Amino acid sequence: MAAMQESEAKRLRRDSGTGNGAAAGEGEDPALHSPVSGFTTERVLRDSAREKTLFVHGKIDDQEAIVILEKTPIRQDTVDEMLKTSTLKLEMKNDIYSTYQLQAPAHLNEIKTTVICPATEKHVKKYLRQETFLIEESGDDYTAITLPYISSQSFSVQWVYNILEKKAEADRIIFEDPDPNIGFVLLPDFKWDQKQLHDLYLIAIVHRKDRKSLRDLTSDDLPLLKNIQEKGQEAIKKQYGVPPSKLRVYLHYQPSYYHLHVHFTSLEYDAPGSGVERAHLLSDVIQNLQADSQYYSSRTITFPLCADNALLLRFKEAGKL
Amino acid sequence: MAAMQESEAKRLRRDSGTGNGAAAGEGEDPALHSPVSGFTTERVLRDSAREKTLFVHGKIDDQEAIVILEKTPIRQDTVDEMLKTSTLKLEMKNDIYSTYQLQAPAHLNEIKTTVICPATEKHVKKYLRQETFLIEESGDDYTAITLPYISSQSFSVQWVYNILEKKAEADRIIFEDPDPNIGFVLLPDFKWDQKQLHDLYLIAIVHRKDRKSLRDLTSDDLPLLKNIQEKGQEAIKKQYGVPPSKLRVYLHYQPSYYHLHVHFTSLEYDAPGSGVERAHLLSDVIQNLQADSQYYSSRTITFPLCADNALLLRFKEAGKL
Repeated sequence: MAAMQESEAKRLRRDSGTGNGAAAGEGEDPALHSPVSGFTTERVLRDSAREKTLFVHGKIDDQEAIVILEKTPIRQDTVDEMLKTSTLKLEMKNDIYSTYQLQAPAHLNEIKTTVICPATEKHVKKYLRQETFLIEESGDDYTAITLPYISSQSFSVQWVYNILEKKAEADRIIFEDPDPNIGFVLLPDFKWDQKQLHDLYLIAIVHRKDRKSLRDLTSDDLPLLKNIQEKGQEAIKKQYGVPPSKLRVYLHYQPSYYHLHVHFTSLEYDAPGSGVERAHLLSDVIQNLQADSQYYSSRTITFPLCADNALLLRFKEAGKL
Repeated sequence: MAAMQESEAKRLRRDSGTGNGAAAGEGEDPALHSPVSGFTTERVLRDSAREKTLFVHGKIDDQEAIVILEKTPIRQDTVDEMLKTSTLKLEMKNDIYSTYQLQAPAHLNEIKTTVICPATEKHVKKYLRQETFLIEESGDDYTAITLPYISSQSFSVQWVYNILEKKAEADRIIFEDPDPNIGFVLLPDFKWDQKQLHDLYLIAIVHRKDRKSLRDLTSDDLPLLKNIQEKGQEAIKKQYGVPPSKLRVYLHYQPSYYHLHVHFTSLEYDAPGSGVERAHLLSDVIQNLQADSQYYSSRTITFPLCADNALLLRFKEAGKL
């Protein structure tokens, strides 16, 4: 196998030296060209229509393999050539708008391909996407299903307490209001490497330990929420020069951990978890509580859950999905 | 120039007839099919390496034009054929990992192309990448700033009326409730090529012409909104087999055009515009109107606007940014 792989690689390297690939494969046996021509698909692990990627699990010569396909970005410097040398199929025409399917010369439209072979079960799990479902949780569902689940799981938020008590990550805190009722610490989220501002991501973690999530909030929490909004925005403006008009400030429901926290992300950054199905703008939360103190305890709230999430199983058992 | 274009177009069409893409446009005027072969690029308005898109401004026969290119999602049902019939150029090999550039047959690797011609300065602005800012629009701001702006601009929604009156895109409608008060048509959004379900994207456009946006909605509109939710979900389940628990159903504020419409996107698809700063879940809209008929006319609503958006300038002039 190793020998075969080596010669395969050498041959491929030779081929790649023959030019831009416009006539790739002509008159040659396609099977010789590619380790993936003998690939047998078992299942798609994940795909993204937005990013034009596909992750497939299968076999190459009886060995477990993963093939990752990703279309390449459209290059500005080849667009003129592409438009001149492609064929188009008209799909739709309406007024000034028309749409086509364009078939470009292959060398202007490559697909980045990554092969992992032999692949282990860990690789498969890493790339497998879980199906997600929208849950509609009424106030009663929260009390009957979600709250008992949260209590039974005794999720550890020790790491949060470590931060609040300066036992960990103390050097990462960029702002703190130490007030036990309306205070919080503000620090960069792990997802942000702090090397550029366009994916700025900070988290405000409240000092009080008796608010698990959005569901617990009432008008009593307005001073806390307004304090986070005002002082969080102010600290980010001071530290990074990013004004409130460039910040998306929101809570998750369900949150990843049941200790109240607020996300601050750059408006330019399409942050994971900032979709309408999971995020709640802090400014909306404040307004809703001003109008109705019971807004979040009584309202049906929609959120996504993965297929193997234990809470999803409880909703299923209760006949709610 | 025109003659060159014509012969170019004829050649292109002949070429397209030799592959599997023969069907489209056969026996029709070829010049209609390849408007982009005579396209001259002026500048790139926007691109996304993540999404594999490119927006170009230029000219077609002295007319202003915008060409939007977007690589199509990788289809699961063609991946076996693609891997068997493509050529690969080895880029890197390290242990169990190797990467290649794959050159696929053109018909398996199309590029969705949208042409807007003649394009106006507004179209150019729409697609030009701009800095964005969050606006907080109170109910009074809407009356004093936004509504006069919408009225003064007289945005054309003729293309919407063409759809509602079956003058265009009639064959694309997958469901219609013809009721003049609570009825709507449901059709695939342009962004969706309908070849796979994971980026499913449909739009419900209401028949009534007197609702510009979320701001106009009151409890009087609950029958309309519930009808869209129920029958839209039902039609999508029937047509595509996608259940309501896999659908994100929402309105935009600000919308792209001021004729009420509702977005239906696959939950798996991280659809552009589905972020919390612009999207409003239909189920939340219904609940909010049930609790308070004036919810959307009185509430401060947050939304993003581009730096050169005329409405943003009005907010600036009013000292609101």
